Amino acid sequence: MRVLAMLDGSLADPDRPLLRADDLGVQRGDGVFETVLVVDGRPRKLDAHLERLARSAALLDLPEPDRAAWRRCAAAACAAWDGPPEMVLKLVLTRGVDGTGVPTAFALGTPVPELVLRQRREGVRVLALDRGYEAGTGERAPWLLIGAKSLSYATNMAAQRYARAHDADDVLFVSSDGWVLEAATASVVVAHGSVLRTPPATAGLLPGTTQQQLFEAAEEAGWVTKVEPLRLDDVLSADGAWLVSSVRQLALIRSVDGRPLRASTHDATLRELLRL
Amino acid sequence: MRVLAMLDGSLADPDRPLLRADDLGVQRGDGVFETVLVVDGRPRKLDAHLERLARSAALLDLPEPDRAAWRRCAAAACAAWDGPPEMVLKLVLTRGVDGTGVPTAFALGTPVPELVLRQRREGVRVLALDRGYEAGTGERAPWLLIGAKSLSYATNMAAQRYARAHDADDVLFVSSDGWVLEAATASVVVAHGSVLRTPPATAGLLPGTTQQQLFEAAEEAGWVTKVEPLRLDDVLSADGAWLVSSVRQLALIRSVDGRPLRASTHDATLRELLRL
Repeated sequence: MRVLAMLDGSLADPDRPLLRADDLGVQRGDGVFETVLVVDGRPRKLDAHLERLARSAALLDLPEPDRAAWRRCAAAACAAWDGPPEMVLKLVLTRGVDGTGVPTAFALGTPVPELVLRQRREGVRVLALDRGYEAGTGERAPWLLIGAKSLSYATNMAAQRYARAHDADDVLFVSSDGWVLEAATASVVVAHGSVLRTPPATAGLLPGTTQQQLFEAAEEAGWVTKVEPLRLDDVLSADGAWLVSSVRQLALIRSVDGRPLRASTHDATLRELLRL
Repeated sequence: MRVLAMLDGSLADPDRPLLRADDLGVQRGDGVFETVLVVDGRPRKLDAHLERLARSAALLDLPEPDRAAWRRCAAAACAAWDGPPEMVLKLVLTRGVDGTGVPTAFALGTPVPELVLRQRREGVRVLALDRGYEAGTGERAPWLLIGAKSLSYATNMAAQRYARAHDADDVLFVSSDGWVLEAATASVVVAHGSVLRTPPATAGLLPGTTQQQLFEAAEEAGWVTKVEPLRLDDVLSADGAWLVSSVRQLALIRSVDGRPLRASTHDATLRELLRL
């Protein structure tokens, strides 16, 4: 089951080719995307995703996304969905065919992969891998697009493959000067007592919509939340650490580089918070 | 004028969509490419390009490219070309539609852009920009895909746009510890007297097929060639510095960060060498 909706709200056949060979999304990974979880026909946090899509587009000098059109497009995909209660809706905006200046835009709905459902239930073993740059690099070098959710994700995918080839499920990116950043497609959140922490975007990472949602819900429930730099030791010493993303929601980190983390008593509580 | 050839040697209509929305080349910039210059129907250095395509594919854990098939595909594109004497032939290999394990492969032929022809004639002004990582990072962190010619080129394109927005034509990437790397889509070569130098792949760059061709021809003609680390001062003090790539061939660097380089007496000589 897959659905494909265009920006004008029309549906297209996902089995048929959509992009030309000279689309810059194909040729250069030149575009941006968002991944939205849809539950029972309702996209979660769509406004936050569209907000971030607009930030990514601005970093890549793409035209500002038309949010009303994207909402219509997402609604069309949701209405056409005939699969399980949960759908992964990927919004894609490329620079379009070279020379035309007309972006390519579509939303593709697919089921939540079995692997992701298992990681939600069972958690993940992560491998800490060097992201190659120092924390703060993105601030002084905007052309590196650090913090843009671009279609150029080959490195994220390669790091994930590297982790899977080394007895782990995912990667925990660390800056070359030792600061915890994020996973390949998820934010990192750690708990110490009733304090939740995640590293700041300025370290060189993508701010998480689900992490933000979690922190808002946690604050209302009496937790203290902090956005501040984290070391790997902060993860290793935590009373719970999670990969947090729209589709995976919460995946408890079971181990880092093969070193088991202590069992968390907070996992069930945080899961409840995200369902608010 | 554009031609599109598939890996089986058949031709396709370049005006029609070719890639599905769920092709990982689209979704993740997950694939590799080569750009080959074709002159009078003959691809230049096709074997060297296919060799590098295979190296890039290996870095991304893609199946090894079928070189005979790629040669056939390139030949089909060349035979169908009815445009100017020079054609840019881009070979693209993506991981294919998610879950199928079947790569998407095609060759797209287009004319040499007017901008490139002008840079060949008139040279380029470059802006030195931080590449974000230290020289040598790729050696210890293969998951970063440094030195793979992947489809995830959004950063290269963003750096080029940044340069153009700042009174330059292209970027000269420098490692965060000050070593000259390459341009967004070209190698860097400098001359001091009769010595040609280019930085090594281990610094964190893509080895250039045209740079290699130039060095081989130069050695036969009595030049000394060296592959060794370069500082920005080595570019600024050169008797000639060039961006070297398959399509642009040689573009003389006129200035770095607005500081003019001395006029080169070697430019015509090197141009002759590349036509050998």
